[in-house]
Amino acid sequence: MVDIVQRVGIKAPAAKVFAALSTVDGLAGWWTRSTTGSSKVGGTIAFRFQQPSGEEIGGFDMDVLELVPDQKVRWRVKGGPDEWVGTNIEFDLSPQDGYTIVRFGHRNWREENEFMGHCTTKWATFLLSLRDLVETGRGKPAPEDQKISNWH
Amino acid sequence: MVDIVQRVGIKAPAAKVFAALSTVDGLAGWWTRSTTGSSKVGGTIAFRFQQPSGEEIGGFDMDVLELVPDQKVRWRVKGGPDEWVGTNIEFDLSPQDGYTIVRFGHRNWREENEFMGHCTTKWATFLLSLRDLVETGRGKPAPEDQKISNWH
Repeated sequence: MVDIVQRVGIKAPAAKVFAALSTVDGLAGWWTRSTTGSSKVGGTIAFRFQQPSGEEIGGFDMDVLELVPDQKVRWRVKGGPDEWVGTNIEFDLSPQDGYTIVRFGHRNWREENEFMGHCTTKWATFLLSLRDLVETGRGKPAPEDQKISNWH
Repeated sequence: MVDIVQRVGIKAPAAKVFAALSTVDGLAGWWTRSTTGSSKVGGTIAFRFQQPSGEEIGGFDMDVLELVPDQKVRWRVKGGPDEWVGTNIEFDLSPQDGYTIVRFGHRNWREENEFMGHCTTKWATFLLSLRDLVETGRGKPAPEDQKISNWH
């Protein structure tokens, strides 16, 4: 099993970061505008991605496993690309030097491969979109997300 | 042993990307302006990072292990933070859909930790700086690099 791990710092209280990770509106503000479902523990969130033309590219369904206010969000991938199904995604928040530090993990990939590399770089751009949303009120969720290659 | 892997696509011929990865001037245009040494196989490249004030923050010394024109660059870290020493860094280039695809690996970390998470996100910003340099002539090397947290 292999993991993607990342770390960003956001100049805002943990409660604001947690809201952006634990509500449908918050998630729609930095990852993909097409976010629906229930973001409570036991619920399922549906993330979908479209071309600017409206054509659907794909998406993920996440079961919400754990929410610890201002500290932790944890999901399991129930639907999406085969490589993602069964993996876990988690966000751990902690204060440091006036920042809320986000330690991100996308864990339990079955193998390291090129698609995992793509997802690593793409997650970095989305974590910086999360930061921009929380710090400035404006993220870059899909379909306005930063393109990094022929794979979107 | 754990690895960081990433993937970006650059709209330019592989020769231009290879030049940005295999020459001191190229590397200084996207990673850190303070790049010196020999970028030939058997040489050592010294990367240093400064505050805008000029104060040195740290750096890395890389032995150049392999250069395959327009295809591959591979280094081993000889000096730098303890977590980096002995790790390998590689860039594999291949054409796809009009892009030069860069598959990046920073391999053989002894363990997954918070610093590795920081380096993952930071590498993503530098790989996009590499892309910008090759596509537009202007990257964001340190000290003008994108800050991602209290750790720089």
